[in-house]
Amino acid sequence: MAERIKAGVLGATGAVGQRFIEALTDHPWFEITSLAASERSAGKTYENAANWRLDSQLPDEVKGKDVVPVDPSKVDADVVFSALPSSSAKTVEPEFAEAGFAVASNASSYRMEDDVPLVVPEVNPDHLGMIEQQQDNRNWDGYIITNPNCSTIIMIVSLKPLLQFGLNNVNVATMQAVSGAGFDGVSSMSIIDNILPYIKTEEEKMENETLKLLGEFNGSEILNPDIHVSSSCHRVPVLDGHTEAIWAGMDDNPTPEDVRQAFLDFDPGLEDLPSKPENSLVVWDEPDRPQPRLDKNIGNGMAVNVGRIREGIRYIALGHNTIRGAAGASVLNAELLHKKGKL
Amino acid sequence: MAERIKAGVLGATGAVGQRFIEALTDHPWFEITSLAASERSAGKTYENAANWRLDSQLPDEVKGKDVVPVDPSKVDADVVFSALPSSSAKTVEPEFAEAGFAVASNASSYRMEDDVPLVVPEVNPDHLGMIEQQQDNRNWDGYIITNPNCSTIIMIVSLKPLLQFGLNNVNVATMQAVSGAGFDGVSSMSIIDNILPYIKTEEEKMENETLKLLGEFNGSEILNPDIHVSSSCHRVPVLDGHTEAIWAGMDDNPTPEDVRQAFLDFDPGLEDLPSKPENSLVVWDEPDRPQPRLDKNIGNGMAVNVGRIREGIRYIALGHNTIRGAAGASVLNAELLHKKGKL
Amino acid sequence: MAERIKAGVLGATGAVGQRFIEALTDHPWFEITSLAASERSAGKTYENAANWRLDSQLPDEVKGKDVVPVDPSKVDADVVFSALPSSSAKTVEPEFAEAGFAVASNASSYRMEDDVPLVVPEVNPDHLGMIEQQQDNRNWDGYIITNPNCSTIIMIVSLKPLLQFGLNNVNVATMQAVSGAGFDGVSSMSIIDNILPYIKTEEEKMENETLKLLGEFNGSEILNPDIHVSSSCHRVPVLDGHTEAIWAGMDDNPTPEDVRQAFLDFDPGLEDLPSKPENSLVVWDEPDRPQPRLDKNIGNGMAVNVGRIREGIRYIALGHNTIRGAAGASVLNAELLHKKGKL
Amino acid sequence: MAERIKAGVLGATGAVGQRFIEALTDHPWFEITSLAASERSAGKTYENAANWRLDSQLPDEVKGKDVVPVDPSKVDADVVFSALPSSSAKTVEPEFAEAGFAVASNASSYRMEDDVPLVVPEVNPDHLGMIEQQQDNRNWDGYIITNPNCSTIIMIVSLKPLLQFGLNNVNVATMQAVSGAGFDGVSSMSIIDNILPYIKTEEEKMENETLKLLGEFNGSEILNPDIHVSSSCHRVPVLDGHTEAIWAGMDDNPTPEDVRQAFLDFDPGLEDLPSKPENSLVVWDEPDRPQPRLDKNIGNGMAVNVGRIREGIRYIALGHNTIRGAAGASVLNAELLHKKGKL
Repeated sequence: MAERIKAGVLGATGAVGQRFIEALTDHPWFEITSLAASERSAGKTYENAANWRLDSQLPDEVKGKDVVPVDPSKVDADVVFSALPSSSAKTVEPEFAEAGFAVASNASSYRMEDDVPLVVPEVNPDHLGMIEQQQDNRNWDGYIITNPNCSTIIMIVSLKPLLQFGLNNVNVATMQAVSGAGFDGVSSMSIIDNILPYIKTEEEKMENETLKLLGEFNGSEILNPDIHVSSSCHRVPVLDGHTEAIWAGMDDNPTPEDVRQAFLDFDPGLEDLPSKPENSLVVWDEPDRPQPRLDKNIGNGMAVNVGRIREGIRYIALGHNTIRGAAGASVLNAELLHKKGKL
Repeated sequence: MAERIKAGVLGATGAVGQRFIEALTDHPWFEITSLAASERSAGKTYENAANWRLDSQLPDEVKGKDVVPVDPSKVDADVVFSALPSSSAKTVEPEFAEAGFAVASNASSYRMEDDVPLVVPEVNPDHLGMIEQQQDNRNWDGYIITNPNCSTIIMIVSLKPLLQFGLNNVNVATMQAVSGAGFDGVSSMSIIDNILPYIKTEEEKMENETLKLLGEFNGSEILNPDIHVSSSCHRVPVLDGHTEAIWAGMDDNPTPEDVRQAFLDFDPGLEDLPSKPENSLVVWDEPDRPQPRLDKNIGNGMAVNVGRIREGIRYIALGHNTIRGAAGASVLNAELLHKKGKL
Repeated sequence: MAERIKAGVLGATGAVGQRFIEALTDHPWFEITSLAASERSAGKTYENAANWRLDSQLPDEVKGKDVVPVDPSKVDADVVFSALPSSSAKTVEPEFAEAGFAVASNASSYRMEDDVPLVVPEVNPDHLGMIEQQQDNRNWDGYIITNPNCSTIIMIVSLKPLLQFGLNNVNVATMQAVSGAGFDGVSSMSIIDNILPYIKTEEEKMENETLKLLGEFNGSEILNPDIHVSSSCHRVPVLDGHTEAIWAGMDDNPTPEDVRQAFLDFDPGLEDLPSKPENSLVVWDEPDRPQPRLDKNIGNGMAVNVGRIREGIRYIALGHNTIRGAAGASVLNAELLHKKGKL
Repeated sequence: MAERIKAGVLGATGAVGQRFIEALTDHPWFEITSLAASERSAGKTYENAANWRLDSQLPDEVKGKDVVPVDPSKVDADVVFSALPSSSAKTVEPEFAEAGFAVASNASSYRMEDDVPLVVPEVNPDHLGMIEQQQDNRNWDGYIITNPNCSTIIMIVSLKPLLQFGLNNVNVATMQAVSGAGFDGVSSMSIIDNILPYIKTEEEKMENETLKLLGEFNGSEILNPDIHVSSSCHRVPVLDGHTEAIWAGMDDNPTPEDVRQAFLDFDPGLEDLPSKPENSLVVWDEPDRPQPRLDKNIGNGMAVNVGRIREGIRYIALGHNTIRGAAGASVLNAELLHKKGKL
């Protein structure tokens, strides 16, 4: 690849923004050309604006880069990755799309819009077909595509191979890491030696996004599948890695071994995307795996781990919430866009 | 009450044993007369034998008491509370029952035996009727009664008022505290910043014990109810207090408000038992409660907290696993025995 | 005591404010008459304004009380306890003192002022003599008295009995609980599985406040003692309870046993103060005590625990940072004021 | 390097044993030829014998290797790395040395023996001169060399450049990670939300080993330096990485800037050793660094981080306790042996 695609990060200083920088550093297709953040940060070097809190080192090529405002006229990029909070994403992302940028967004603001693709490459790559419709509707040169909420992504990759058995019902209880709320989202006083049995709007997102993702795109709209999803979301004292206990009801009543084999056989065929892990689903047979601290980073944090497949069908799914469930998901989407000639 | 009932604790030095001592100290009906523990501890004073690890202070009247071996001939008591590991409970508890002791056991060894009552006073007090049968069958002067596993107890108290709606299906995902495994049961290396998605035999216990508890005792045997229970058990970095996400399927499809009212109205009628909390079920309307660190001790740790009652029906149940779910449950059983004239 | 003293709490919704409410509920001398907090809270009932986060239950008599603004004209009280952040304490506390209130402050703003008593009743009760001077200097009807920073208090109570040996040097390394920074002061992302080796201005406070506390008040000013104090402060993943490793250099080179005996013999003679614990210093001989989770609440959280007294002299001091180190310290000061007829 | 040196690991399944495997996998000079462990493990494949608990993946070339007993006749190696508990190291390591193996031991059993080198390459490489003496004394074909306790290593690397200022006194308070006690060494019940103010024999080790390490080896014996070391050791809820608050008294009274420069200038000259990090000391100027979770892995876990250099002189030192403080230290010692032609 002679020339690399210019990539900007919106909301570059936060928890997901830092993961975007990690994912894009040394990326074979993209190079970081703009780092945008709020007024408070703009004008400083990234090193001074951001409090780098990952255990990887802040990349040298990013340290001295100037942070620019979140303004299309200040950002130099072909594609922008949005780690903005949903409130500001709501107004800012359309400005970028109108100005001709491809916006790969991790924000929730536009996920459920009728003409905005909500995509996980392993699950519904054909939903990208919606982009032209979006550009027509909105008179945009650019466009917005979105990835789901972290909890949804980790579940949906594991549900995809179960569609063949006539998936009809999903109950899911999540045990979610604190990083999902951002660096300052969960105070230590509220979570040490504790569980928070509630994450605002998370259950609705898991239920609604799952239906859209599994819906059939007929060229003009998405037909929701006949699947019932019921979610219960909980915060646990874990830094990174969401663990989910899933019950999947299926018409064909597959055995646990059938399901295990379907997980092992799952091949979404995206080998040419750089961020695609060797196995999208990693199957564990040990009774006490997967575990977030030990297994979240498998496949550079892009794999979804599954295990404890039992009668029911019940199983555990686990993935890195700010990589597979956020920054890495947006980057994988952008890689798919590029492969399809849309960047 | 002129004279108090003599109570022994078997396995007095462990995590549940210490909770028994806490529960029996200053008890209006019982007084601790014997503390029994393994060979290693026997012969020492309790203070020297046990490493007291509760944040309450070791009671003065227990400090200097000599620890005796777990041997019926060495124990002076009317009732013995068993916090023994199931392996030794298996052989020791029958020796005590044969020797004429009432054994109120927290161990799992005899819970599922046909002639051994598995009882939670709020749920199935009539199962105590099995005692005479047990004594006949086994030629024992004493008897064994048991309480369920901690996770089962916390769930079952909340399920009881749902029976009126035609309960037919239960899915439950637990987030269990480390104290459930005993003081040294879960190493810090395995649980800090982590989730263990597996607790050995726990899911089977929750499923089997629930059916026995909700079964109808017809005077000679228990007829299992037609309810399907499916459990997924997980260990979290919490010291005390099990949190459970429960889906309850019911024939009558009650609304969340119906269920809330049923929880509020739940009155098992055990006011005269000293360990009975004011409310067996404490209903939370705040969206982010109950939480284990804040709410486990309500009702002296004997209440079951319920909250987040949603369509589905989904809700959260939470209780103190080594009090409501273990030592306190056995003591409440013994109080019921006494009230029924069986001590 | 026929009539109780009217007490207000300034900053009543925060971490220390809630501890003030806990300490003043059922207090034999004081009754809570006013709860004051920021604009955001004023006008609401306390239950609605505050997110009660202690594991004790929110007292019923406080639930429905209206929160008033932090304004002397809105507060009905004889004494106000200040849990204000130092920035607002700086301007607000003088307004209350001028308006005639006795202000017992936990804020740092006025601790080091020449005419403001910085007092720990067990250590330097005579410094209260400064109050008249303060009222003269400032033309106030009321006055401000302060207690030290939490880390200083826990250390200073243990240093007091060492003065007899010619204390000349103190090195102290703290391991401080997250509650010291307020409910939202330390994010979980920054402290789970981590240590923060820095707490802003904490070391300076420990060093300066210790000298003032141990200084001699000659009726008009405080003469600093000839003691060198060097502090290193660290935040650890503990909810409540500061642990301090202290090296105390003394002219007389006492043995560890001499020091232990001095700790045991320490009697500040404040028996008639309701919040005074039975023992101001609790001495532990077990090699692995005191520990914050197990021992912070001894003496209702008002004792300072000491242990591991070794050659050096080295030892461990431990106390509850938001009770002994904050709210309880202010209440004890007010009790001393009352006893001395100054309320 | 045409042929690689054959390396065995004794105690290969434990916490430090797993770190040895990590350090030796893909090592340019060594190849793992034997994995030895207790009777319980011997005969199984490593994958079956060990519960791999690092977040790196178990290396493929190790998975299927048979575990052998800890017996010189069963081990095929030129050098053996010992992660044995000190009790078994005491008897087993001499058997290996007598049988001609070079034993690079992390165990404490022989560290303080007069003829056994206790070496940190950055600090006292010349102490290896003791080996011949040891072989003569004991009639061994092989020999034992040791590295210090984890807490000592992290401190000593930072003390080395301070010798030039006339180091005479060291006070050190440690905040030690749970991995230092092995996988099951610290139960979660004892450390979540807690501090243990005691680690058995740790303080003695830090004091005695430091003197030996800084002693002058005159060809026949070690002359202890005139430095006073006083240590206070504490366990904190951190997985990996020991943090140490150090006070260093020096004759020349250097300024914090002098000390900072000495740390920056420190060059032990070991560039040709593969495990030597680029900087043995990494100096942090940010006020809140180093932090164990973020900084322990710098230099592949082999650097010692220093920061917060203040008047006193006080500073923070931090390193990875099972890499820099254990397995990596032994491997670095073996690399030094090889470079000196002693393997």
